[in-house]
Parts: sequence; C-alpha cells; structure tokens
Amino acid sequence: MRDIFDAELTQLGEDLVAMSRRVERAVTDAGVALLTADLALAESVIADDLGIDAMERDLDERSILLLAQQQPVATDLRIVVSALRMSATLERMGDLARHVAQVARGRYPNHAVPDPLAATFAQMHDAAVRVARRTTTLLENRDIALAESIEADDDLLDGLHEDTFAALLGGTWTGTPQQTVDVTLLGRYYERFGDHAVSVARRVTYLVTGAVAEDLSTPA
Amino acid sequence: MRDIFDAELTQLGEDLVAMSRRVERAVTDAGVALLTADLALAESVIADDLGIDAMERDLDERSILLLAQQQPVATDLRIVVSALRMSATLERMGDLARHVAQVARGRYPNHAVPDPLAATFAQMHDAAVRVARRTTTLLENRDIALAESIEADDDLLDGLHEDTFAALLGGTWTGTPQQTVDVTLLGRYYERFGDHAVSVARRVTYLVTGAVAEDLSTPA
Repeated sequence: MRDIFDAELTQLGEDLVAMSRRVERAVTDAGVALLTADLALAESVIADDLGIDAMERDLDERSILLLAQQQPVATDLRIVVSALRMSATLERMGDLARHVAQVARGRYPNHAVPDPLAATFAQMHDAAVRVARRTTTLLENRDIALAESIEADDDLLDGLHEDTFAALLGGTWTGTPQQTVDVTLLGRYYERFGDHAVSVARRVTYLVTGAVAEDLSTPA
Repeated sequence: MRDIFDAELTQLGEDLVAMSRRVERAVTDAGVALLTADLALAESVIADDLGIDAMERDLDERSILLLAQQQPVATDLRIVVSALRMSATLERMGDLARHVAQVARGRYPNHAVPDPLAATFAQMHDAAVRVARRTTTLLENRDIALAESIEADDDLLDGLHEDTFAALLGGTWTGTPQQTVDVTLLGRYYERFGDHAVSVARRVTYLVTGAVAEDLSTPA
C-alpha cells in the first residue's frame, strides 16, 4: 500500500516537473517573440497554453484519486496539497507567458517594446527564463540552494519593473499611449511571473526543510 | 465518523463564506477609496488584506486535518480540493482589492482616476461590488442562478475594461503617463477580479450540478 502511494506521489512530482518544463518553454518563446516580433512563435505560445491548463486539471484529478485510494498521513497530505497549490501557480505562469505573446502578436509587424526600453525587457526576459529553468530544476532535484537564486532573480525582475516605471514617469517619455499601456502591462506580467516562481520555490523549501517560509502565499 | 466529517465540511464552507465576505468589504472600500480619494479607507483595505491571507492559510491547514482525520470518499475529496482552489482565488481577489487601494493611496490627495474616466470606473466599482456580494451569497446558499449573474457582470467588467483602452488609445487622450499607467493597471485589476469571481462561480456550479463547466480554471 505504502509503495503504491510513494509511486503515486513520485508521479505527482513528475507531473509538476513536466508542467514547469512547459512553462519554461512558454516564457522563453514568448520573450523571443516579443523581442524579435516573431508572429509564428507568439501564436505557438498562445496555442500551447491550453496544454498547460489541461495539465493542471489532470493533476487535480490525479490528486483526488490518490487521496481517495490511499489513506495518506498528514505529511503526505501536505505534499499533495502543496502540489495542488503549485500546479495552480504554474498554470498562472503559463497564462502570463501567453499574455506576453498576445502583446507581441497584437503589435505585429511592429515591435511592442519601444527602443528605449528594449535593453530593459531583454534583461527581464533573461531573468524570467532563468527563474523558469531553476524552478524546473528545483522541482526535479529539491536542491533548495536554487530557491535563493530564484528569489535573487525575482528581486532583479522587481528592480527592472521599477525601471520601466521610471522610464515612463521620468518626464522624458515620448511614447504613444499604446506604448505606455504595453510597457505597463508587460512589466507587470514579468514581475508577476517572478512572484509566482518565488511562491513555488518557497513551497518546495517548506516541504524539504519543514521550516515555515516567510510567506507561502504568492507575493503581490 | 460521517457526522464529524459533515460538520467539518460545513465548517470549511463557512470559512469560504467568511473569506468571501471579507473580500466583498475589501473591494467595496477599495473602490470608494479610489473614487473619493479617501486615504484612511485605502490604508484600512491594505492592512486588512493580511487577514484575508491568514484565512487562506487557516483553510489550508483545516483541509489537511480534515483529510488526515477522516477517510473521505471521492465526492467529498472533490469538495475539499475545490475549497482549496476557491480559497486561493478569494485570496487573489483580496490582493486585487488591495492593489486598487494602493493606487488610491499613491495618488492621494489627488484622484487616481482622471475625470473623463470617472464614470467608467464608477461602473466598474458597482459591478465588482455586485460580483463580490453574489459570490458570497452563492457560497452560502448554492443558488446557481447567481452564477449566471456573476458571469453577466464579468462580461460587463470586460466591456468597461475595453472602454478604458478605447479612451486611452482613441487618439484624443491627453492624460499624463502616470494617468495612463494608473488607468491601465486599475482596469486590469477590475477585469481580473471579475475573472476570479467567475472561477469561483463555476466551481460551485460544478459541485452542485456535477456538470463540467466550460472551464474551471481562472479565465484570463
């Protein structure tokens, strides 16, 4: 009985890794689509997000079956409940990647990011890709040192988000209202993406160390 | 055993209602703070959001205990898992109300909403308050006719959100970049608030009717 349960818990963990890998590809492709005005790539991210949503639903069902067929003890329940929370978070990260792709698609054949902010968004893209890659690895190997680097990149994303506001509000901004709207939303999407990754990282840390992280809910 | 479980499930339902009531007050006060530039009210919404976050954590713990102490069957598990999902959604709705309050606080003593959009945001506020109130009632009495009116108000919120973009991008906008940023973010907060309420409404409908709603994940 215990062996079956362990096997199913392992499967749940593998499902989360697979979801995270998919999110990693989504945010990578969405950023490239944004920075290079690549319509086909943007479309593929948008289409692929349905697959990420389906993975969340499957994980829900698997969790319910697992809880129903076994009688897990409290520690295991904590793992299952955390898995449910993390799958919801990963699903949101997929949505945010899709939103970035939708902005890229909406401005095509133009670039959504105005030239003066191209370098800032290139840095946001790099940080988001690192965050996504490390989230996958953290879910895979539970090396909680990775959680710290995810927090560091989230701080970087927050700083870059502040930079976009500084550019918009510094008094020298000459962008169109459309550009102001796009920069505002894109900045928020990247900032939220980092927040969600931190939430996953804290949950994994909590499961591994048993320590209550500063705050397990998604920072906002 | 069954009676204890039923009592605990009932308690879980009551916790969700209490959370929803708190979100209702948050979005009501946040909107009033926004529309009247009321600093004290904005501050109270921001402070109170910590309480909503704590309710989500309590609900997590209660669910884990409930699952550990009883051996629920699949239908009951579905209810518990749904409760976990809904508490996360309500927590996000609280965050969004807090974000509205933060914008109001940031612009004080000025009004964050520029005059030409005051009527649009007053309508968004009214729709969001109705949505929040009906979400509480739906969680209380499971009258799924309410789910339809929540969807209708969400459609209204989407339309009003489009109106804000039309105002910003119609070529006659003379607002400052700060105003453009604020309108962009506020519009998104209200639009997301409606989406989350729809997600709760669909979950309740699913639990009541057993029918698979169009999409149980949060629309985005």
